[in-house]
Amino acid sequence: MSATYQQLKSRTLPEQRAAIRAGEYCSHTAGLGQGYLQANLAIMPEAYALDFMRFCQRNPKPCPLTGVSDTGNPMMATMGRDIDIRTDVPAYNIYRDGKLAGSAHDIRDIWQDDLVAFALGCSFTFEHAILRAGIPVWHIENDTTVPMFRSNIDTVPAGPFRGKMVVSMRAVPEDRVDAVVEISRRFPLAHGAPVYWGDPAKIGIADVANPEWGDPAPVHPGEVPVFWACGVTPQVALEAARLPLCITHKPGHMLITDVAEDAEIPVLTFT
Amino acid sequence: MSATYQQLKSRTLPEQRAAIRAGEYCSHTAGLGQGYLQANLAIMPEAYALDFMRFCQRNPKPCPLTGVSDTGNPMMATMGRDIDIRTDVPAYNIYRDGKLAGSAHDIRDIWQDDLVAFALGCSFTFEHAILRAGIPVWHIENDTTVPMFRSNIDTVPAGPFRGKMVVSMRAVPEDRVDAVVEISRRFPLAHGAPVYWGDPAKIGIADVANPEWGDPAPVHPGEVPVFWACGVTPQVALEAARLPLCITHKPGHMLITDVAEDAEIPVLTFT
Repeated sequence: MSATYQQLKSRTLPEQRAAIRAGEYCSHTAGLGQGYLQANLAIMPEAYALDFMRFCQRNPKPCPLTGVSDTGNPMMATMGRDIDIRTDVPAYNIYRDGKLAGSAHDIRDIWQDDLVAFALGCSFTFEHAILRAGIPVWHIENDTTVPMFRSNIDTVPAGPFRGKMVVSMRAVPEDRVDAVVEISRRFPLAHGAPVYWGDPAKIGIADVANPEWGDPAPVHPGEVPVFWACGVTPQVALEAARLPLCITHKPGHMLITDVAEDAEIPVLTFT
Repeated sequence: MSATYQQLKSRTLPEQRAAIRAGEYCSHTAGLGQGYLQANLAIMPEAYALDFMRFCQRNPKPCPLTGVSDTGNPMMATMGRDIDIRTDVPAYNIYRDGKLAGSAHDIRDIWQDDLVAFALGCSFTFEHAILRAGIPVWHIENDTTVPMFRSNIDTVPAGPFRGKMVVSMRAVPEDRVDAVVEISRRFPLAHGAPVYWGDPAKIGIADVANPEWGDPAPVHPGEVPVFWACGVTPQVALEAARLPLCITHKPGHMLITDVAEDAEIPVLTFT
């Protein structure tokens, strides 16, 4: 028994999570779990976890850490009352030695006692705030994926993790750029303020109409291309580090948490 | 050759750091490094670093992580252009097996290749913002140490790190409480918004006039006692964990960084 996106959208968050856990829903999560934080996922052996955590701490805009499991424990206790990271993401990518080795909807069969799961904030949160302020977001209105580019901005390395920062682009009317910067700065767990706006060539982007990931989006006259640090950055760093095993969410297929989107900290309090 | 507080206060930040490094100044840092982030310090063997980092991630209000060294490398590269964590804090406390074993102004002789240094944000940043808003802060105006209490609020444990949250108290005029909450919420790296305000008994504080650390401060009629998560919390958790070796700053004797107090992220960019 499988559920469509439209069916799932009308359900409560616990029902949505139950459907994902049961394997009844395996598609993207944009617009689901309304009002709750969604997160990128990276799972790796404990031997690499301290360096990866340092990489996130040193690069908080592309890698805003929102939760870390205990070693070997698949429950993400600080972000949800009952989140099993082995089953509660609609689709996973599995990398071995830095290469994509397969995809899955459930990773119980490959879970190991030495694995640590990391959840990283994503851009949905600040996009919702920008839309609420009446500023259009083209890729949402046109139901496409935000365009993403490899910039020439270096991340701060930690152990085997390093590389250029990947950025996402949203075209913003000239007179709303200040507002967009101000709004997104309030969401440090969702990439914060843009890292750059203006001439794409200045950050190493030769053709803003031709993204490396996602779909193209126009920059109309009177609009400025605005670039935010992107959650693909840690994925690129993870691939380059060639870990023996690394599991991520499949792009767009995020972890939906029980943490409110506007929470001050991404930690549930059980009071 | 030693320098007094008044002498040091009139110098530039690089001159202040040079005096601290040379052992010419070994006293408290409140009011020094004006405009720059100051930080609490915790140094421990790498074997405990992942769990301590998880403890900080899960308890971001008492433990706002602002920097982590590479293992065995004493340079805090993300927070300063030339910060040697072995010499650039005015005074250190050295704990062995959870017990205070001594103090020092320089830890080069006990530095080890397996040590990791953590810097955690402190309350100075949001206090400056509150003062700028015209709201009085009694302990600053009276040159005493903020009163601190062990609350009944549990931290979220990680490995051997656990315990009750320590909170600091500032009495705020009733009609300015909302403003103080709003202002301090803007500084997630300086403990963020208060964790509680009102009747101290509700968070396990029997006598608000009798703090466990720091100096007493009055709560006048028309004022509300407001409690923030405090950087003593990780120190208490570290003592309880009885690490074979742990080095912290001596209270009030902080690390002064090159990161601007109002920076969006605590990471220097070298552009």
